[in-house]
Amino acid sequence: MDTFKLTTVEENEAATARLLETGALVGADSWQQRVKNQTPHCKFGEEGACCRICSMGPCRITPKAPRGICGCDVHGISGRNFLRFTAGGSATHSDHGREICHTLHTVKPDGDYQVKDPEKLIRIAKEWGVETEGKDIYDLAHEVSELALLEYGKPFGVQRWLSRAPKKTQEIWHREGIEPRAIDREVSTAMHMTHMGCSSLPEALIRQALRCGLSDGWGGSMCGTEFSDVMFGTPMPIDTEANLGVMEKDMVNIIVHGHDPSLSEMIVKYAEDPEMLALAKSVGAKGINIAGVCCTSNEVAMRHGIPMAGNFLQQENVVLTGACEAIVVDVQCIFPALGPLSKCFHTKFITTSDIARMPDSDFIHFDCENAGENAKQIVKTAVENFVNRKQDLVHIPDIKQKATVGYSFEAIVKTLDTVTNSFVDVVGTTKPLVECVRSGVVRGAVAMVGCNNPKVRPDSAHVELMKKLLKEDIILVVSGCSAQAAAKAGLMDKRAKDLCGDGLKRVCELADIPPVLHMGSCVDISRMMILVAELAKDSGWDITQLPVVGCAPEWMSEKAVSIGNYVVATGIDTFLGVHPMVKASNVVDGLLQGGIRDWVGANYHVQLDIDKLGDEMIEAIEAKRDALGI
Amino acid sequence: MDTFKLTTVEENEAATARLLETGALVGADSWQQRVKNQTPHCKFGEEGACCRICSMGPCRITPKAPRGICGCDVHGISGRNFLRFTAGGSATHSDHGREICHTLHTVKPDGDYQVKDPEKLIRIAKEWGVETEGKDIYDLAHEVSELALLEYGKPFGVQRWLSRAPKKTQEIWHREGIEPRAIDREVSTAMHMTHMGCSSLPEALIRQALRCGLSDGWGGSMCGTEFSDVMFGTPMPIDTEANLGVMEKDMVNIIVHGHDPSLSEMIVKYAEDPEMLALAKSVGAKGINIAGVCCTSNEVAMRHGIPMAGNFLQQENVVLTGACEAIVVDVQCIFPALGPLSKCFHTKFITTSDIARMPDSDFIHFDCENAGENAKQIVKTAVENFVNRKQDLVHIPDIKQKATVGYSFEAIVKTLDTVTNSFVDVVGTTKPLVECVRSGVVRGAVAMVGCNNPKVRPDSAHVELMKKLLKEDIILVVSGCSAQAAAKAGLMDKRAKDLCGDGLKRVCELADIPPVLHMGSCVDISRMMILVAELAKDSGWDITQLPVVGCAPEWMSEKAVSIGNYVVATGIDTFLGVHPMVKASNVVDGLLQGGIRDWVGANYHVQLDIDKLGDEMIEAIEAKRDALGI
Repeated sequence: MDTFKLTTVEENEAATARLLETGALVGADSWQQRVKNQTPHCKFGEEGACCRICSMGPCRITPKAPRGICGCDVHGISGRNFLRFTAGGSATHSDHGREICHTLHTVKPDGDYQVKDPEKLIRIAKEWGVETEGKDIYDLAHEVSELALLEYGKPFGVQRWLSRAPKKTQEIWHREGIEPRAIDREVSTAMHMTHMGCSSLPEALIRQALRCGLSDGWGGSMCGTEFSDVMFGTPMPIDTEANLGVMEKDMVNIIVHGHDPSLSEMIVKYAEDPEMLALAKSVGAKGINIAGVCCTSNEVAMRHGIPMAGNFLQQENVVLTGACEAIVVDVQCIFPALGPLSKCFHTKFITTSDIARMPDSDFIHFDCENAGENAKQIVKTAVENFVNRKQDLVHIPDIKQKATVGYSFEAIVKTLDTVTNSFVDVVGTTKPLVECVRSGVVRGAVAMVGCNNPKVRPDSAHVELMKKLLKEDIILVVSGCSAQAAAKAGLMDKRAKDLCGDGLKRVCELADIPPVLHMGSCVDISRMMILVAELAKDSGWDITQLPVVGCAPEWMSEKAVSIGNYVVATGIDTFLGVHPMVKASNVVDGLLQGGIRDWVGANYHVQLDIDKLGDEMIEAIEAKRDALGI
Repeated sequence: MDTFKLTTVEENEAATARLLETGALVGADSWQQRVKNQTPHCKFGEEGACCRICSMGPCRITPKAPRGICGCDVHGISGRNFLRFTAGGSATHSDHGREICHTLHTVKPDGDYQVKDPEKLIRIAKEWGVETEGKDIYDLAHEVSELALLEYGKPFGVQRWLSRAPKKTQEIWHREGIEPRAIDREVSTAMHMTHMGCSSLPEALIRQALRCGLSDGWGGSMCGTEFSDVMFGTPMPIDTEANLGVMEKDMVNIIVHGHDPSLSEMIVKYAEDPEMLALAKSVGAKGINIAGVCCTSNEVAMRHGIPMAGNFLQQENVVLTGACEAIVVDVQCIFPALGPLSKCFHTKFITTSDIARMPDSDFIHFDCENAGENAKQIVKTAVENFVNRKQDLVHIPDIKQKATVGYSFEAIVKTLDTVTNSFVDVVGTTKPLVECVRSGVVRGAVAMVGCNNPKVRPDSAHVELMKKLLKEDIILVVSGCSAQAAAKAGLMDKRAKDLCGDGLKRVCELADIPPVLHMGSCVDISRMMILVAELAKDSGWDITQLPVVGCAPEWMSEKAVSIGNYVVATGIDTFLGVHPMVKASNVVDGLLQGGIRDWVGANYHVQLDIDKLGDEMIEAIEAKRDALGI
């Protein structure tokens, strides 16, 4: 225990600086350089005062030009931009979920994809009113997948998963007219409302932004998470490692990057294929090492303990090690920069999805119908590339941390069951956690999520906030790039309990958990929704009363905004360290940071001073406790 | 006949200038002033070199900053912007179609909405393989409406309407992978592909733009047109008038503006209600006068001969007459400027749709379930407002033209049937028109469509191009704001035949048609698709071989780009007078103006010199004729 020490942001930066030296040698570009070239950013765009929605413009709002050509003011413009931003995120997450549903439609007992968690499938089928008795599990999978796919396009009704929320929450959604209908319809509605000459009333635009967000979190993302679990297994605690040091000098390094486990699961499988291992040996490698970047990494770490090479702003670093034979990507958050960068090294940049086609890549089409064959081809391409490695460019930073990951909702409940006798006498609930919160042993929880963004010193906000919160006995549930920031720092090592206040430390010891719980990828924030829903049901409190907040201190993508919207709309205050692009409109900003509280009982809080952001979260949690009288 | 004279653009401008004087008196803003304030436009946005897709940016591409922070180059950025632009348009048109399908789902024999063209409904049902024998027409309507609604979200398969295209065209779509699946899915796919870290390969982005466009023209828009016809009747030739002079000094003037006939049909109906007429008399008005703006105007003009007050850039003018009691709007192309402008007059600016909520408006929610009641309330509000008219502000320009409109595909075929004996011996086909084209009496056809845009002198491009083309014996089929430009100029007066070359003039006389045929609203460009499909089948030529081109000389909206994409993807060269916002990328621009020809046999042609644009269209038509050897 005495040897345990967190990895600092400075140590990570030093490792990056060394890699950038290699980059300079080979004439590689880097995000650090591109940020310099792109700074300062256009204020009109950054603050939401620029409209490019029709070709009469673009229009920009200034004191001298207070309205666009159509007459839209800055509130309408920034509100529309915010809604479109949300629609982009919701469509993206949900389309990931759709691919999972389509993959589920292809499962076969002897196929590439199988039902690995039949119990979960049956639970969902029952929840959806599907007859399960005497039905073949594969027939059931196909039947449920068709129903799930209809959630994207059914002409009538609202999302099925909404019924998982507490009654009170469902009533709020109904009262406010933000129950999402078919998932894709909410995206199309958002696009229609923001078309030239449609909505410019901020309230209407922000309301649809919440609805469109809900269609992600309680719709498409939930499909993605739940049916991934059905096919690939529901994550349970597992040990792994994190940071660039997980790459192996003497092995074929294949980096999986992106989001959809349909691809990465197959790559992991074929990397263990004896034929591929023999091929690796034949080219002089000791074996095949798979490591992940971004949410794909979270998916395979949670289910197989595959190490995590890094998060969003480290994706170029894996290539800069000179030891990456292939970076295999599917969709989302993939730097187009990987194309030209990979050309500076021997690395194969392998794109696989029609959704994410990029220049300077090798495209190997991957689809669930031919998954095994495609995956084998990809692994083979990577292995054969080992011989092209330029040894003088190889440098793998000696930097990594141990991490215990895999805290799905089911895993959390199972973990809580191990301590049940101490508190209550039922199993399979969140009641032990409720009791910890009620007693004050744990003050509350922060769901920390989201990306990196060069506007914030990478990882620093995630890590510093976590450290600050742990000290206050606030437990962290995390996902996405925030989870990787934590893992790289060492906060998912169980020994990190020593960073906690006394109460939380005791809980970590009793339950044998790290103080920062890795709940998965970005779509898995749906797991957090299920967790708060169950906490509300088990405690008798409303979600809005729970001493729980959300936080995305370094967010960057449209998906993050969609997430923020469904988290807030679920009644959870959400704290941001990067401003949504609406600052130009005090009305839109005022709604997001205040007005929507009247609708859903929660709102956004934007604070660019990260330490203050932490203070505000602690205050918010304590205020909730006070209101509950606990 | 000798008194017939076109209205010139100068005369229209003089009328506008006079109205702007009134505006100045009351302190009203105007688009003319706002254009001045917004000029010059941001070049980064206008040329497609600005990316606002994530919050790391915005990024702008310059020679010194050739890539965004993620590494995306200008080709990826402008390609993504173009695809998102398309998605906005496709979602918008298609959502209009969806509303029509939902309205069809509510038809009742004694309801607000009824089946007025049962024959067309039965034809569609048969086309879709629905049993029609012995079925109540209302049951059939409900059954077909559910199938239509599933076109928006079905998990598998491609659009039903595609089978209306010639086999060859369908083969091209299949070969190129651009057959649209569920309508909303194509929008979501477009949003996903353009999310941060997804597609940056121009070919992939433009291909999806074509597919997303096709899901509009051969999907959502076609639903909109076809089921509007089923409920409101298929348009047949009818006389009306156009321009601001259609407003009546002594009557209650209600302007309907927007797109969805579900609203305007009801307003028209209740404006004839004896109770409302009595109310109008009681407040001192001679009656109730309905006139239209934008596509709503086209819808009710085509079916009821309701006069057309004007097109897109004239929407403020109707208020500036001081004689507008209410401007009643639903969705799309509605200036938010109407809010503050109406406050300078007695005019009620009545918004009705959740899709288009605007500040400074009176919101009277309109839905198909309570359509009659809602419509009556709207008409009543307008009538009661007559007494508030400020007489000293009233000035209605004495300017209007006669127009014959209503040329649906069915109306064109019926018209051709009247001359059938002269050419061939079958009825119900486009063969007489094919023969005219083959013989050279008519050289070809131009489908002129789209908006106004202050970047072009309003209406001038539409009207001057039409005059130029008619002289060359090229017949015009038109829709949207282009149609209204023609009608206001007088080009839909049958006497305008005298502006044609000898061949076309003879055809106009024989068939008793104006030389510019009004085919409807923007969604009705689907009628044009059906027309070219039938021309191809009846001639034996491919669509790409037909001497037919599309033209949007003053386009402005995302819908126009979606339209352009499906017209081009259907194999019809399309000519634009305003540049799509992709000029910064020679790759994207090169694809649109050339490269996509290898995929679909047609491409865009951008030419800002309107006279040259006309020359190029004539050349293109003659080149097609040469290739056919006719």
